[in-house]
Amino acid sequence: ERSAVRRLPFGRLADGDVAFFERLMPGRVLTRQEEVMPFNVDWLKSLRGSSQLVLKPQTTAEVSQVLRYCHEKNLAVNPQGGNTGLVGGSVPVFDEIILSTALMNQVISFDKVSGILVCQAGCVLERLNEYLDEQGFIMPLDLGAKGSCHIGGNVATNAGGLRLLRYGSLRGTVLGLEVVLADGSALDCLTSLRKDNTGYDLKQLFIGSEGTLGVITAVSILCPQKPKAVNVAFLGCQSFAKVLETFTTCRAMLGEILSAYEFMDEKCMELVERHLKLSSPVADSPFYVLIETSGSNATHDEEKLNNFLEQAMASGLVADGTVATDDKKIKAKVLGLCGFLRSPIPQVLWSLRERITEALTHEGYVYKYDISLPVAKLYDLVTDMRARLGQSAKNVVGYGHLGDGNLHLNITADSYSRSLLDAIEPFVYEWTARCGGSISAEHGLGFKKKQFIQYSKPREAVALMQQFKAMLDPRGILNPYKTLPSAA
Amino acid sequence: ERSAVRRLPFGRLADGDVAFFERLMPGRVLTRQEEVMPFNVDWLKSLRGSSQLVLKPQTTAEVSQVLRYCHEKNLAVNPQGGNTGLVGGSVPVFDEIILSTALMNQVISFDKVSGILVCQAGCVLERLNEYLDEQGFIMPLDLGAKGSCHIGGNVATNAGGLRLLRYGSLRGTVLGLEVVLADGSALDCLTSLRKDNTGYDLKQLFIGSEGTLGVITAVSILCPQKPKAVNVAFLGCQSFAKVLETFTTCRAMLGEILSAYEFMDEKCMELVERHLKLSSPVADSPFYVLIETSGSNATHDEEKLNNFLEQAMASGLVADGTVATDDKKIKAKVLGLCGFLRSPIPQVLWSLRERITEALTHEGYVYKYDISLPVAKLYDLVTDMRARLGQSAKNVVGYGHLGDGNLHLNITADSYSRSLLDAIEPFVYEWTARCGGSISAEHGLGFKKKQFIQYSKPREAVALMQQFKAMLDPRGILNPYKTLPSAA
Repeated sequence: ERSAVRRLPFGRLADGDVAFFERLMPGRVLTRQEEVMPFNVDWLKSLRGSSQLVLKPQTTAEVSQVLRYCHEKNLAVNPQGGNTGLVGGSVPVFDEIILSTALMNQVISFDKVSGILVCQAGCVLERLNEYLDEQGFIMPLDLGAKGSCHIGGNVATNAGGLRLLRYGSLRGTVLGLEVVLADGSALDCLTSLRKDNTGYDLKQLFIGSEGTLGVITAVSILCPQKPKAVNVAFLGCQSFAKVLETFTTCRAMLGEILSAYEFMDEKCMELVERHLKLSSPVADSPFYVLIETSGSNATHDEEKLNNFLEQAMASGLVADGTVATDDKKIKAKVLGLCGFLRSPIPQVLWSLRERITEALTHEGYVYKYDISLPVAKLYDLVTDMRARLGQSAKNVVGYGHLGDGNLHLNITADSYSRSLLDAIEPFVYEWTARCGGSISAEHGLGFKKKQFIQYSKPREAVALMQQFKAMLDPRGILNPYKTLPSAA
Repeated sequence: ERSAVRRLPFGRLADGDVAFFERLMPGRVLTRQEEVMPFNVDWLKSLRGSSQLVLKPQTTAEVSQVLRYCHEKNLAVNPQGGNTGLVGGSVPVFDEIILSTALMNQVISFDKVSGILVCQAGCVLERLNEYLDEQGFIMPLDLGAKGSCHIGGNVATNAGGLRLLRYGSLRGTVLGLEVVLADGSALDCLTSLRKDNTGYDLKQLFIGSEGTLGVITAVSILCPQKPKAVNVAFLGCQSFAKVLETFTTCRAMLGEILSAYEFMDEKCMELVERHLKLSSPVADSPFYVLIETSGSNATHDEEKLNNFLEQAMASGLVADGTVATDDKKIKAKVLGLCGFLRSPIPQVLWSLRERITEALTHEGYVYKYDISLPVAKLYDLVTDMRARLGQSAKNVVGYGHLGDGNLHLNITADSYSRSLLDAIEPFVYEWTARCGGSISAEHGLGFKKKQFIQYSKPREAVALMQQFKAMLDPRGILNPYKTLPSAA
């Protein structure tokens, strides 16, 4: 895919540059090929950059100095967090200098009254969640990559994930950011206030800009209280229509305690079982649904969940299911509603859903699409694609955050094939655009999707984005070749 | 206050201009002084512009044509919604043309599955709430001005209000916007998707920009389901420390059903009783707290609320209180917890809190401050100000959205006095800045507060805002003299 892009006339790395960085951050400059390699390759191993230099600043001042230098020397920079992105946004396309936030991993403050956490951009999401857990709080977002992804990268890509249904998007929970701009100047909008209407909300521009407008160095984020009770139900449905009806029913009956509504098709389950040796507690259903509740009163939550499950079973929406809870008392109890109940811990059920991405990588080459659609049409795209591709694809699977209208459509084949790609694209984008959907719900555009932005955004909007880019990064050194389409 | 500002060299309205607008929207062009007057004066009657022209477009195309014309002729424009703002953002400073959204009041669509409402900018908030109520949904925001304010104005000012604690800010709930830019071009970002990560989120720049970057013509917004049960408790606390402790306790015990935590001091109550003839169901407390719960199960909610109230009374946090509910069954029941219980309807209790602003206007001149602070320090500012002003102020009162860290500090005097103002400012702003607070939590900066932006935003941020303004509105015709500070 890189072949279509030409290297822009940035400066080339010289010995003097490396020496400068070595003086600035001794011992935190990687140049040996084997050390640099993992930073050049994306998580899917589908792209490989040729950067010769990784920098690991520890402070905002160091990031400022790096960018000021690169701006002067016209050196391109690829900011990188946990490198877990799926659209090639976090690895260099050519020889961009990699600016890793790996050592910017300090918590700056946490206020237990307000639940506001302030931390450096390189904190790993799971570490933050563990830190908060001890104090009775949780992060407002959760995603499969939590063990590696950095909060700065999450914010830079406006990560969605598994808790968005309940706690909303980062646009609401991120209260402040510190950002270093392309010329090295630091922009301090790192406030810790729930409300602040003094002028334009500059931080929003950096949320979701994938490192193309500035480097996020610190984040202030509103964290919810840790729920006292968490329950997970894993259910089998005999049709997608029933998946939808189950959603409507559970939204009404679980109300404010509903914290996730995920779905996967039977093909996903088959791959998770085959490649990861996970076993499904519910079988023989074309669709599976994972419902999570989080609440402040275990008894009330259990009652709400039981009422919902009774109704769902009685009305035939759900054919089979199991329930897991964190609560040891409830765990010992048999709910007696479902055909069988193994009462596993919630994380075991979550693994079935969270590890689909990983299972898919065992199938060969994966064509990945992350689509927003009106909920009712969500699975039609999978069905249409399956019919269209026939035998030319190994698998066409659908799963995702149904409660948010977010489908992950994945197509696998033994190896990459141009003709298969041509059968998928632009069909998938045109289909999405016809329904008023988004061609990237949460993954961003990165390197792989940037040329398709016009399927979801009007020409005037893209032109305006390009003006913002030109204003904030006039030399274009920040994460070039990403997010915005190249000039025709 | 206008004396400090000079009229910028915009064009002057000519007969030919009025004739052009009359052709464009016959019968929807106001020029008679008595017709134009109400649009020239703000709700507080503290400012009066001298516009000679009000335009009432019905469509986005008309707004486009108006702005294209004004851009060409260098005529300044003051976009106006319900004109309920408190910082002079919605009335002209000189002779700006008033562009009213009053006739842009159509609902475009509502989807019952997703809860996404799309409507024109001039829809009145209360009308939208009534429209949604019939379909089992509510607006994600609510504020005292709901009977007059327009949703477009709410979005343009990033209104906070009474439900922010539960449903979050408009930055999370607004999913799409249609905006007409200064040159008349329309920017269509009116999507109805929960998630969309295709490029920069342009709409965020217009949220809270107070009409200075573009005119919002339509809004797509995510609406929560109407809660099945709503309860309101109105409680008296003997100290502000107990108000805070009550907040911590109720957050833990009410958890996900807590939808508002408001407070007011005894002086507020006195004014509401005196000027509006409302009577308080709870008396003799230095502080009053209004707690609202919204949930999906009346029995569970009642149990949670009762548990909390028992605990709060038993531990002496709360001295006295009353509870109101929408549920007729519960209403008939005496909860038996509080000293006395009149069991009024929730709206009666809400009036005590919501109508404070109105009551204050009866006191003479009101100096209004809308401050974000760390919750623990919220009332210290009121106490310090009261001590500082002594007899020179008639009243120094504090109330607001405690759960959001938002204090409304109001100081009244028989009439405006420069020396009193000098005693208040910049003291109030310096005090706020020292605590890392915001000098405008939700009201915006408008005309009255724009010169104080530096107390809450660093110089670099203000400079960047000015660059955005110059980029999007190079002639500065949109709501001039507002939000950003005038050049020194």
